[in-house]
Amino acid sequence: MTLVDPDLLFPADPASRAVTRDLYAGVKDLPIVSPHGHTDPRWYAENNHFPDPAQLLIVPDHYIFRMLFSQGIRLEDLGVPTLDGSPVETDGRKIWRLFAENYYLFRGTPTRLWLDYTLENLFGMTSPLTPGNADAYYDAIAAQLMTDAFRPRALFERFSIEVISTTDGALDELSWHAMIRDSGWKGRVIPAYRPDSVIDPDFEGFLENLERLGSISGCDTGHWRGYLDAHRNRRAYFKSFGATATDHGLASAQTANLSAGEAETLFGKVRAGKADERERALFRAQMLTEMARMSADDGLVMQIHPGSWRNHSPAIFQKFGRDKGFDIPTQTDYVRALKPMLDAVGTDPGVSIILFTLDETSYARELAPLAGVYPALKLGPAWWFHDSPEGMRRFREMTTETAGFYNTAGFNDDTRAFPSIPARHDVARRVDCAFLGRLVAEGRLRDNEAHELAYDLIYGLAKRAYKL
Amino acid sequence: MTLVDPDLLFPADPASRAVTRDLYAGVKDLPIVSPHGHTDPRWYAENNHFPDPAQLLIVPDHYIFRMLFSQGIRLEDLGVPTLDGSPVETDGRKIWRLFAENYYLFRGTPTRLWLDYTLENLFGMTSPLTPGNADAYYDAIAAQLMTDAFRPRALFERFSIEVISTTDGALDELSWHAMIRDSGWKGRVIPAYRPDSVIDPDFEGFLENLERLGSISGCDTGHWRGYLDAHRNRRAYFKSFGATATDHGLASAQTANLSAGEAETLFGKVRAGKADERERALFRAQMLTEMARMSADDGLVMQIHPGSWRNHSPAIFQKFGRDKGFDIPTQTDYVRALKPMLDAVGTDPGVSIILFTLDETSYARELAPLAGVYPALKLGPAWWFHDSPEGMRRFREMTTETAGFYNTAGFNDDTRAFPSIPARHDVARRVDCAFLGRLVAEGRLRDNEAHELAYDLIYGLAKRAYKL
Amino acid sequence: MTLVDPDLLFPADPASRAVTRDLYAGVKDLPIVSPHGHTDPRWYAENNHFPDPAQLLIVPDHYIFRMLFSQGIRLEDLGVPTLDGSPVETDGRKIWRLFAENYYLFRGTPTRLWLDYTLENLFGMTSPLTPGNADAYYDAIAAQLMTDAFRPRALFERFSIEVISTTDGALDELSWHAMIRDSGWKGRVIPAYRPDSVIDPDFEGFLENLERLGSISGCDTGHWRGYLDAHRNRRAYFKSFGATATDHGLASAQTANLSAGEAETLFGKVRAGKADERERALFRAQMLTEMARMSADDGLVMQIHPGSWRNHSPAIFQKFGRDKGFDIPTQTDYVRALKPMLDAVGTDPGVSIILFTLDETSYARELAPLAGVYPALKLGPAWWFHDSPEGMRRFREMTTETAGFYNTAGFNDDTRAFPSIPARHDVARRVDCAFLGRLVAEGRLRDNEAHELAYDLIYGLAKRAYKL
Repeated sequence: MTLVDPDLLFPADPASRAVTRDLYAGVKDLPIVSPHGHTDPRWYAENNHFPDPAQLLIVPDHYIFRMLFSQGIRLEDLGVPTLDGSPVETDGRKIWRLFAENYYLFRGTPTRLWLDYTLENLFGMTSPLTPGNADAYYDAIAAQLMTDAFRPRALFERFSIEVISTTDGALDELSWHAMIRDSGWKGRVIPAYRPDSVIDPDFEGFLENLERLGSISGCDTGHWRGYLDAHRNRRAYFKSFGATATDHGLASAQTANLSAGEAETLFGKVRAGKADERERALFRAQMLTEMARMSADDGLVMQIHPGSWRNHSPAIFQKFGRDKGFDIPTQTDYVRALKPMLDAVGTDPGVSIILFTLDETSYARELAPLAGVYPALKLGPAWWFHDSPEGMRRFREMTTETAGFYNTAGFNDDTRAFPSIPARHDVARRVDCAFLGRLVAEGRLRDNEAHELAYDLIYGLAKRAYKL
Repeated sequence: MTLVDPDLLFPADPASRAVTRDLYAGVKDLPIVSPHGHTDPRWYAENNHFPDPAQLLIVPDHYIFRMLFSQGIRLEDLGVPTLDGSPVETDGRKIWRLFAENYYLFRGTPTRLWLDYTLENLFGMTSPLTPGNADAYYDAIAAQLMTDAFRPRALFERFSIEVISTTDGALDELSWHAMIRDSGWKGRVIPAYRPDSVIDPDFEGFLENLERLGSISGCDTGHWRGYLDAHRNRRAYFKSFGATATDHGLASAQTANLSAGEAETLFGKVRAGKADERERALFRAQMLTEMARMSADDGLVMQIHPGSWRNHSPAIFQKFGRDKGFDIPTQTDYVRALKPMLDAVGTDPGVSIILFTLDETSYARELAPLAGVYPALKLGPAWWFHDSPEGMRRFREMTTETAGFYNTAGFNDDTRAFPSIPARHDVARRVDCAFLGRLVAEGRLRDNEAHELAYDLIYGLAKRAYKL
Repeated sequence: MTLVDPDLLFPADPASRAVTRDLYAGVKDLPIVSPHGHTDPRWYAENNHFPDPAQLLIVPDHYIFRMLFSQGIRLEDLGVPTLDGSPVETDGRKIWRLFAENYYLFRGTPTRLWLDYTLENLFGMTSPLTPGNADAYYDAIAAQLMTDAFRPRALFERFSIEVISTTDGALDELSWHAMIRDSGWKGRVIPAYRPDSVIDPDFEGFLENLERLGSISGCDTGHWRGYLDAHRNRRAYFKSFGATATDHGLASAQTANLSAGEAETLFGKVRAGKADERERALFRAQMLTEMARMSADDGLVMQIHPGSWRNHSPAIFQKFGRDKGFDIPTQTDYVRALKPMLDAVGTDPGVSIILFTLDETSYARELAPLAGVYPALKLGPAWWFHDSPEGMRRFREMTTETAGFYNTAGFNDDTRAFPSIPARHDVARRVDCAFLGRLVAEGRLRDNEAHELAYDLIYGLAKRAYKL
């Protein structure tokens, strides 16, 4: 018995399925390239054992606890820590049992596919998780987590990860990355430059962050030019650890293209804490264009992740803090918003900007037409809520005809859930092969082309788009 | 010969179809739970014969006469009554013939599926309706309508309706419901509280409605607190007739969360007829939140049906009045609009708010992410124009991966077309089984899970979500 | 060996495929009705040989050069002419080789399907175009282009074009159309009235255009009534050449319905160059309604093509001019925007307005509900970026259930790429048959109905909707 159907996610009709099986067989064992994610570099640096099954698989996974919360289960009972330290469940076994009782809620969701894959392929489980076998499951997983084969570096190698990027704040010293580098371990773990905290005037501690940016870069962030130099300095520092990309997660995709004088004046106001809401938004918009210009100079690939309304529930935010499942997508405009940046760098084939969206309506209407003509633009994969079989299928169906395959950037797992990484890549590989299999079965693609494309969608494009 | 293919709406590939058949066989005969609709309680109370075939099936059905009108057929010729009493066709046979001549226009629409099902299963017809057999059809249906087996209560029982909810204005005395209750008949027909006429300052006769609300509730609607008490009183009255839900059909999903003092002041302005457009909208928004709070207290499930631009054509509205097919969906925002109400009650698992939309772009982007985390929210089924095979399929494809199945609320037939109710439920059952069948065929769901889900999607969830 | 799979675009499951094959066999050889396109009437008038393969197939096709540009290939190297006459590649063979090297970029796009079809069916090529056979391809095509069988009229006849409409500015004298008419050739080539240059105050040379409109119509365009008369005059002139339609390509779908006095005043301001941005937009909006009113009088079918942000990149626009692949779709509202025009003429079955969109989100939400009730409205086919297999499938899936098939207007090839016309119609025929085939296989349509519909979707509806 298996938890994962060998034909999982393949089209049901025999002709498409046969092609899909063949395509998948050719790519399923390719190494994992993970150019965008949120695993903790400390894991690879210290290489300590992971904690108990609940702390590893349930407590940090917002996909899991948001669904359980939506059905009336308290976050406290799932062990999600409170900001004020008020008590939450700490018994991993109890949390695991509660999860097992409610695992049926995940039917039809990607979480279910990822978890079944992980339970079977990583932990060797072969029967579906139920309330009845929850304890046995827990014991089996806990025992394995204590072995050396389940320490981070061993898993990294077992997962065939060729390279993984973490995401690191602009002020991060990258000491874990240094520790990895100095350890002699050959796993390739690289940082990505995420400067939201020193670009967004509304970020907590923004002014102190500017001070700190000045001190660690040795540049005078009291002035516009020095501030830009500080970014250049940090970007170079990140590059020295292997970084090939930056990442930008603002609420809007708005960009601006001010003159140097206007930008300098605006920075002054922002720095003095006198910028109003419109000006603070304009500063964020201008900084996206500045980052794009720096990418033209230093070659770092730029990633833009807009459109999430963070922390939608103030009650949850106050009690539990950020990233608790209350980030909700909003409608996002790209055609107008990106124009100032595109006017500045859009037709430069030396620039590489990878766009993401939480608003699928922009795929066919805006993103594919933009990426299908501007050499600076590529499309990132289906993101977050859309990193799912139906979501990835819609992404291909709505972008390919206008942008083609070669203006896309391969798969991102985008996760902090380390054990789920092979599962996420496997689902993406299956969905891409299924899409290609359908094209072949419908005579829209020749078989040899589909094989080339499968390799590129799953391996080649990510390496090229991210310069890995 | 049959009008309805036994495999209607099942996937064409053999593997998915086999699973779908099996799932459908297990649920096709489940009783009908109809928690939201617009049948007339008078039918069940008086139990009179229905009128002629045209008056029963054509004249009151806006799906039918809007399509015919779009192709140049006058509403007068279809017997749709005018407000000023100017003459319209009254000969049912002529209307029926006109319909039969144009029945081909409905190819590919759900109306065609519903009607063929009804013609075959209710009236025993076995060949497609054509101009050539229109008269024979008319005679056969008319004759059956005159028999006792086609009176409302007999049909209710023949349809295996376990419970049906009507929709009733806040000022309704529910006298037909009382007559049903007192009749000794065992059919379960319950009301739903629809207070638009006493909540929306732009509703016809709003100020008089407030007076009437005061007199029938015995509360002083001249003041904010008394006005709220009047709602509480009416809700309790509806509950005494078995109501488990309220229903709200405003143009926008906008909510507000004013302080008691602000709300009181606003009510005073509204009541004095001095509120401007913005303030009237704010009052409607505030009242949604008040209704949600009352739901927290009295347990009535709250339904929100936003986003229809009513009576788009003034010419038709002036001549024929409301509900003449000129209600057009508009873009609807939920993430911003619902926030004030969600801030007030969204994380309370004791509240149950069922959301509907006419804007499918909100499914994956807004509604599934919201319902997938807020315990107070559930998703109502695909609504109105989207209550169709493709529409229901898109609903499942775009909501399931983020909200799961268990944050949805089963099917609503939402109709005043009583004879079509079994047809509408049958189409929904087939589409849901087809969706589940595909998941099984693609290895995304186990067979036993699909059977459980089929039962829940078709029966269990509606009962639970509506507390029936 | 063939380039085009005989079952191209047919569903992969055996049941749907069998029905689709049968439907396609019945319609694949129907004559081409091309009611909206951009071929040059001069071709048919002069009947000269087409130039070399690159000038025919690559240089003028924005679908092709936008994709190549997006991957870093310079427009100059593709022979796209510059406005300032700075040098570009003129060697057709070099351009062709560059294209062949990059043809793989078009995998999964409609361009690939159109081109393979054209290479096989028009030029007799049987192996896929590769860098290795680029020269042989070039020679073979070039040789054929020099033969009489490849001159425009011969191709027109070989393509079985029953009628084709060009698109012509309001000020066009239609001299090429006159030359065709006077030549005795029986090919039916008709103009369409496109008055953007004399309706849009922001059009280059608008005021001079008004003068010219006055002089060629003999009407006094210095006044509102004379200006409207000038339009009537030109429309009659176009009709005398067989025109049955007008075409309107403004950025927005906004309409207005001013009183005659207000319109006259507005025209005066526009004519005096004193209208501000809002007023110029209002003038465009008013003119759509005026055009609709004239259609009610003279019977010309009105086509509205809104929602493209033209010339998004100023750098490309300045160097290469219009239509260089930088027209990007934007979100478009119809429900509010069209209301003034619909209030004026929407319920008049004598008016025929065909709507197009670049915003697929409007299909199910706005366009199908509007066209499904207003007799004056019909839906044009999936347009531009959406004139593709997935795009056409989505169009049918999202419009049919509410608008039916008979409120749609058949296929438009909308192209200036003359040799691709049969390919585009073939793809559309295949996609429509596949959609119908699926409906039959799922029991949603009877076989005889599907055959009737295939004929209508592919031939009958275009003739009726465009009065051809």
